Amino acid sequence: MGVSKVVESGHQDYKPGDLVWGMTGCEEYTLITDLQSHFKINHPELPLSYYTGVLGMPGLTAYVGFFDVAKPKKGEYVFVSAASGAVGQLVGQLAKISGCYVVGSAGSDEKVNLLKTKFGFDDAFNYKKEQDLDATLKRCFPEGIDIYFENVGGAMLDAVLLNMRLHGRVSVCGLISQYNLEQSEGVRNLFCIITKRIRMEGFIVTDHYGSYRKFEEEMAGYLKEGKITYVEDVAEGIESFPTALIGLFYGRNIGKQLVVVARE
Amino acid sequence: MGVSKVVESGHQDYKPGDLVWGMTGCEEYTLITDLQSHFKINHPELPLSYYTGVLGMPGLTAYVGFFDVAKPKKGEYVFVSAASGAVGQLVGQLAKISGCYVVGSAGSDEKVNLLKTKFGFDDAFNYKKEQDLDATLKRCFPEGIDIYFENVGGAMLDAVLLNMRLHGRVSVCGLISQYNLEQSEGVRNLFCIITKRIRMEGFIVTDHYGSYRKFEEEMAGYLKEGKITYVEDVAEGIESFPTALIGLFYGRNIGKQLVVVARE
Repeated sequence: MGVSKVVESGHQDYKPGDLVWGMTGCEEYTLITDLQSHFKINHPELPLSYYTGVLGMPGLTAYVGFFDVAKPKKGEYVFVSAASGAVGQLVGQLAKISGCYVVGSAGSDEKVNLLKTKFGFDDAFNYKKEQDLDATLKRCFPEGIDIYFENVGGAMLDAVLLNMRLHGRVSVCGLISQYNLEQSEGVRNLFCIITKRIRMEGFIVTDHYGSYRKFEEEMAGYLKEGKITYVEDVAEGIESFPTALIGLFYGRNIGKQLVVVARE
Repeated sequence: MGVSKVVESGHQDYKPGDLVWGMTGCEEYTLITDLQSHFKINHPELPLSYYTGVLGMPGLTAYVGFFDVAKPKKGEYVFVSAASGAVGQLVGQLAKISGCYVVGSAGSDEKVNLLKTKFGFDDAFNYKKEQDLDATLKRCFPEGIDIYFENVGGAMLDAVLLNMRLHGRVSVCGLISQYNLEQSEGVRNLFCIITKRIRMEGFIVTDHYGSYRKFEEEMAGYLKEGKITYVEDVAEGIESFPTALIGLFYGRNIGKQLVVVARE
């Protein structure tokens, strides 16, 4: 995903100088032919890079995955894994705006600190330092979890299932712990789906582009009011792309990983 | 679950001779104190034993799990595991009444034959004879599965996930293949929940007792019109209870397992 300025256009709705965001290659110039997945930028007064994140696909992902899929109610208990990532940090803040109690997990003490001090999570933990995720979740959620915003899968999902409350919801956004395994770990506690009447539902943000304008206005408002904070990790120059990409899988980035190809 | 005739009552709404169904012990006389889970029988003209099955809890389970949880649409592809059981055989028939295409799995050729000849399933297979469940499901559902009515879990669920269609629904009623294992098998294909935007939802029938009267009338109608067929496996005498119970785990029963304690 990238932010681009139109330099040449054969489409009457786009003229040179227009700012758009959407799918781009890792390249300095992009030929955009699919206008279904590109949007004009309505709030250029905010940092343009936000349109790769909080005002772009990750933002919309957090918004539809939390509101449309998980359907939160005020006062509910929310757990977010990979909570310092571009999506997770927003889910946590949307949960707080909605009057929920929210706990996040992340993979370093620095990230955990960020969740608690900068993003307003009620609590957070470093999953790499926890011996027993079930016990950790019982400590963080003595009343159990109503909503799990799932980014990681595997052992975390198994521990969460044991700690869900009746009629809990698992909004399945990603399963990043499993992507690079030769064989996925098995999830063993699915019986909880019955005993706790859990709804587990996957979604892909591209199905929800119709909600984009509503989301953009709402999120731009939160940003201007200071109700949402957003953190980026900026790598300079197109040549830094491979290192930045690989860094994601080692948890090196803090916040949304960006690569600056050109500045305005 | 049992059908009982009231012999003595301290409750003004129940008098000797009334017929009720609900939770009973394995016993000849039952003291009923919890009226939340007992219902009067409104259609004594139908076989009373039906109130332990097609007109009782298994029937309501099939009805709410299929209609309320899976939310079928005409023309959809439905797969039912443990399809010859008390619940499964009804789900298949409700799917046919709803204009769906339905395939069932069962654990013997005799049961498979019953599904195809007596219950009107479009197709059925003996899972014990299939080497590769993924290939079997691809053969039965070249277009994929919209609704999976889940009774078994484990390897079957993994194979089904690979064959679900976009926006498919898994109505999780039971996971019987896992109940007696020391450790549950892992389910490895949960990534399909994201890629196919699957909703997987567990339910327990006791949450849905409020729908019982509506269900009873509808199902009694189907039975009288011959639109629903129901098969029971009858063991005679209370002393046959342990053998009948254990037989369930070996798949010995065909249709709903009953034990006759007394006849009218």
